[in-house]
Amino acid sequence: MSAPITADRVREWGRRYSNWGRWGPDDELGTINFITPERILAATSLPRRGQVISCALNFDHKGPQTGSGPRHNPIHTMIIDGADALAGAQNGLPGGFQYADDSVIMPLQCGTQWDALAHVFYDGKMYNDRDISLVTSRGARKNSIDALKNGVVGRGILLDIPRFRRELWLENGTAIGPEELDACAEAEGVSIESGDIVLVRTGMMTRCLDEGSWDGYCGGPAPGLSIHCAPWLYEREIAAACTDTWGLEVLPNETVDCFQPLHMISLRNTGVLFGEIFHMDALADACAEDGRYSFLFTAPPLPITGAVGSPINPLAIR
Amino acid sequence: MSAPITADRVREWGRRYSNWGRWGPDDELGTINFITPERILAATSLPRRGQVISCALNFDHKGPQTGSGPRHNPIHTMIIDGADALAGAQNGLPGGFQYADDSVIMPLQCGTQWDALAHVFYDGKMYNDRDISLVTSRGARKNSIDALKNGVVGRGILLDIPRFRRELWLENGTAIGPEELDACAEAEGVSIESGDIVLVRTGMMTRCLDEGSWDGYCGGPAPGLSIHCAPWLYEREIAAACTDTWGLEVLPNETVDCFQPLHMISLRNTGVLFGEIFHMDALADACAEDGRYSFLFTAPPLPITGAVGSPINPLAIR
Amino acid sequence: MSAPITADRVREWGRRYSNWGRWGPDDELGTINFITPERILAATSLPRRGQVISCALNFDHKGPQTGSGPRHNPIHTMIIDGADALAGAQNGLPGGFQYADDSVIMPLQCGTQWDALAHVFYDGKMYNDRDISLVTSRGARKNSIDALKNGVVGRGILLDIPRFRRELWLENGTAIGPEELDACAEAEGVSIESGDIVLVRTGMMTRCLDEGSWDGYCGGPAPGLSIHCAPWLYEREIAAACTDTWGLEVLPNETVDCFQPLHMISLRNTGVLFGEIFHMDALADACAEDGRYSFLFTAPPLPITGAVGSPINPLAIR
Amino acid sequence: MSAPITADRVREWGRRYSNWGRWGPDDELGTINFITPERILAATSLPRRGQVISCALNFDHKGPQTGSGPRHNPIHTMIIDGADALAGAQNGLPGGFQYADDSVIMPLQCGTQWDALAHVFYDGKMYNDRDISLVTSRGARKNSIDALKNGVVGRGILLDIPRFRRELWLENGTAIGPEELDACAEAEGVSIESGDIVLVRTGMMTRCLDEGSWDGYCGGPAPGLSIHCAPWLYEREIAAACTDTWGLEVLPNETVDCFQPLHMISLRNTGVLFGEIFHMDALADACAEDGRYSFLFTAPPLPITGAVGSPINPLAIR
Repeated sequence: MSAPITADRVREWGRRYSNWGRWGPDDELGTINFITPERILAATSLPRRGQVISCALNFDHKGPQTGSGPRHNPIHTMIIDGADALAGAQNGLPGGFQYADDSVIMPLQCGTQWDALAHVFYDGKMYNDRDISLVTSRGARKNSIDALKNGVVGRGILLDIPRFRRELWLENGTAIGPEELDACAEAEGVSIESGDIVLVRTGMMTRCLDEGSWDGYCGGPAPGLSIHCAPWLYEREIAAACTDTWGLEVLPNETVDCFQPLHMISLRNTGVLFGEIFHMDALADACAEDGRYSFLFTAPPLPITGAVGSPINPLAIR
Repeated sequence: MSAPITADRVREWGRRYSNWGRWGPDDELGTINFITPERILAATSLPRRGQVISCALNFDHKGPQTGSGPRHNPIHTMIIDGADALAGAQNGLPGGFQYADDSVIMPLQCGTQWDALAHVFYDGKMYNDRDISLVTSRGARKNSIDALKNGVVGRGILLDIPRFRRELWLENGTAIGPEELDACAEAEGVSIESGDIVLVRTGMMTRCLDEGSWDGYCGGPAPGLSIHCAPWLYEREIAAACTDTWGLEVLPNETVDCFQPLHMISLRNTGVLFGEIFHMDALADACAEDGRYSFLFTAPPLPITGAVGSPINPLAIR
Repeated sequence: MSAPITADRVREWGRRYSNWGRWGPDDELGTINFITPERILAATSLPRRGQVISCALNFDHKGPQTGSGPRHNPIHTMIIDGADALAGAQNGLPGGFQYADDSVIMPLQCGTQWDALAHVFYDGKMYNDRDISLVTSRGARKNSIDALKNGVVGRGILLDIPRFRRELWLENGTAIGPEELDACAEAEGVSIESGDIVLVRTGMMTRCLDEGSWDGYCGGPAPGLSIHCAPWLYEREIAAACTDTWGLEVLPNETVDCFQPLHMISLRNTGVLFGEIFHMDALADACAEDGRYSFLFTAPPLPITGAVGSPINPLAIR
Repeated sequence: MSAPITADRVREWGRRYSNWGRWGPDDELGTINFITPERILAATSLPRRGQVISCALNFDHKGPQTGSGPRHNPIHTMIIDGADALAGAQNGLPGGFQYADDSVIMPLQCGTQWDALAHVFYDGKMYNDRDISLVTSRGARKNSIDALKNGVVGRGILLDIPRFRRELWLENGTAIGPEELDACAEAEGVSIESGDIVLVRTGMMTRCLDEGSWDGYCGGPAPGLSIHCAPWLYEREIAAACTDTWGLEVLPNETVDCFQPLHMISLRNTGVLFGEIFHMDALADACAEDGRYSFLFTAPPLPITGAVGSPINPLAIR
């Protein structure tokens, strides 16, 4: 029987699995540094089918943000549209030219997204020993998502845990440990390498869409990565870790006195890029069909200056 | 001396260069259909350097939307941040976990962007013979940008017109015709093929950034594609055309009585995807350096349901 | 037993209780015209205590818009704040001057509000025979809320139905007819006069706040005005009618085949200003205490050009 | 010749003209406390004409926020409208009922507005000795505008300085001192009393509207109150001070090393409510016509929880 995992131990692991300074004091890329030009080139050689599969959930009012908190679903509004044209409100431009324009109001973490390295912190510090006073109402002056403007491109690996377990989806509260990640990869015929972008499918989104309800999806009990994945992420030199859940980690957390400990360790200290609310079902089907679980992966963030996250449309190119 | 180009002639060309029905009555992809799996695979073989270059202008308050119209620059707001943590307003989560979250309000066409096929119309119709009553305050029920969710990936070609002309940038009002596009491509050692994504650099953005002023950028006189590119786009089966300008076309337009005629012909009828406000300077430098003007290109739109455009971060992978 | 009330009958009553043209073809004020200067002066003589009581529900994330529809609760964001000052992000202004600024995103009908006369319509027409093509994405060109910029000021009357009935609140589905309005007024010692602003308290908001839940408040079963109040509103020359509910009318509606028939009749045809989501509890207590149910009432709309509604802070001055 | 006014002296005056603690340690009303019930009752006896005049500038894209800063003009969007009805997109509700709904995005200080007592601060403190750590991204926990929910109602006084000076408008940089305020009041036949709401017209807005340009209105040189009004505001027990300018005070400021010193003294220390961007022309004309410069004044803020300001529609009832 193991001792309970405390916030103190989380901080200790944070120090142990730290990449602060590894790429110099000015680094804002974190583990994306592991994706070298050689690895990008290698990734471009993976596609066999010329098939492109999105891992984004559509951004709209049917998204998972059903609560009344500050993260709401995207609000899409039309500035001008076809109905206006029919009503005679678009007669200003010559030659009959008419158009539609629109706008969106969206929390940057409301749907399929990257967390920037400025997204979480503790003890006054974020990634690479930077003070959190750099993150104010004016945005993040360091570690913001636009630092990743020339990315994210690399080798993607889908770890389809429900299929590996021969289940439809993992039950809430199921922790996925490093041994299972390795076993799943082996069963899929892939080996995890430095600079890989790892997509871990839990099936939680599949279940929510199947049941037609997002109840509990945002912040409630969920399957997800175990805190014991922290050394795995560090040692395997994972560039990015993504799930089909709200917060990547298993909930309730395995810690007795702290919240989202893997964020605390791996995002803040290791500098891993976290992807959340990925929709992996179509990709999972395609991988199962031809047995190829690695692919060229590209998910460019919108370079919103100073942002601490970005909505994305991640693409698997196979 | 040629006769003035009228709205009647634009409509005639619209009929002549129409792809309506070409991919069936349900098609919402337009010329993206030209990017076959084979062409995607071929594009993945282009990179030599493992280099990724963004063609996005950062999204922030320094963007080109300086007017008081409905297209404003992105408004980025922090929901919670590091300063709040320092002020003691983030003591709710256990273990010292703290975080930053943010939100954006942005017109979908305010910066680097794709126009959806629902973006422009005339005579009550948009691409593929669809009624504009499908585009209302509820969004576009057809031809919206989320139809392109599994894209855009293909071969990109940079046509660097100022470099070809040995100029810093093209003067406002300069029309770029199809002959010049071909000549530039030839000088660069590339040949335009079906399904290509063509990035035409005019240097206008270079000039605005150099001068520190966006005056006139949005809707004022500009260099851009001539209306005579309409048959070229159609016959060469171009998948997407992009510029570093506000509206792709030369302004003032070459027509006497209609606005943005190339949009009217090529977007509405040919079904070409238009990309605007691309920032191509870093890409242009890289291409000039090694003389390779073709690359793997990926620019996934955010699949905002029913949207008539999307901000994007286009990536050239070389 | 009476015949079911159909949409046809609603339209017939609409014609019967119409004020279209009564104040000329250019009128955009509707029944606010009944508040003559004499009546305003008379209203200013009502206060005895020098007491001001707000009938607004606070505008925040705890408001009644708990669903995922387009009417969401207000989103209040800080542009700059005290925490930023503490974090050193406000050192730009000389002399130590620092400040806070903020912004709101709010549907204009999300809380305590006036409906503009452009808010509802049928058969292509809104108040005063105006075509609904005047209400487009560019806003309402007629009958918008800014037409009431120099208002609303007049005599307010609270009709406290639960107190009259000796109940805490009315059950959902309870229709309040004109006889009860008159009886309640008589019991309170007031007589309804031309130009009065009538606040009808149902207790529904009291119940929701008491139960800590807005479930069903927006659009679900509710107590409210009966369709039979339509002639009463017309004949008594009521300037404005307000409730503590989402939609003024009893729900389910008393009609078999149409929605919100009192809006259809009285707002569109009679031109009555409707106020909704009023918080009347403090006012009800004060009126009960001194037995005075009439007061000077002022509820100026924000003159948002072209808006079809406005959030308000209605004040009873007693 | 007087010594330059320094930030040190501003701080000294701040201590001298402080009302901190005057109404107890819990007070959040500041000088609004001077508006006693007696004064409210007295104010209700002022109207003679039954005339209501708004002092709001319409809220729309033509407002004064023409810059690219975080305070932008209101963005009004339609959620659903008449054009949608015509396009067949509103067929969901029975009986032909159709409607329009809308939304606004607006900085709370973008137009006619109240500054909350949480709006400005220095040396870590705001009004009534409160720490600025209370003002975070979650809003202001103290001194927010919703503290004034049951207000603002009282006696209003228009001091029409251009008319007093027989000028169309005051030149930019013109400081209005306390002697001129008194002389103007005397010429108008009113005497300033405790609890008065003083509207000082400079004519700057008149000029901007006349010239069709807001250039320089927001933050540029402007006429306004002199720093020497600080003791006058304090000693006369003014409840609120309002102007037709962006920032109430004369610009450039009369201080050598600090910004908006009257805000620093009178808002932070005296606790005076400041109103800005008032449109006083119609009121000025009416007052000039009948020679009555005092009136019942009501300008209820929207009680947005935690807000540091509120757009308002101030009404003069005469």
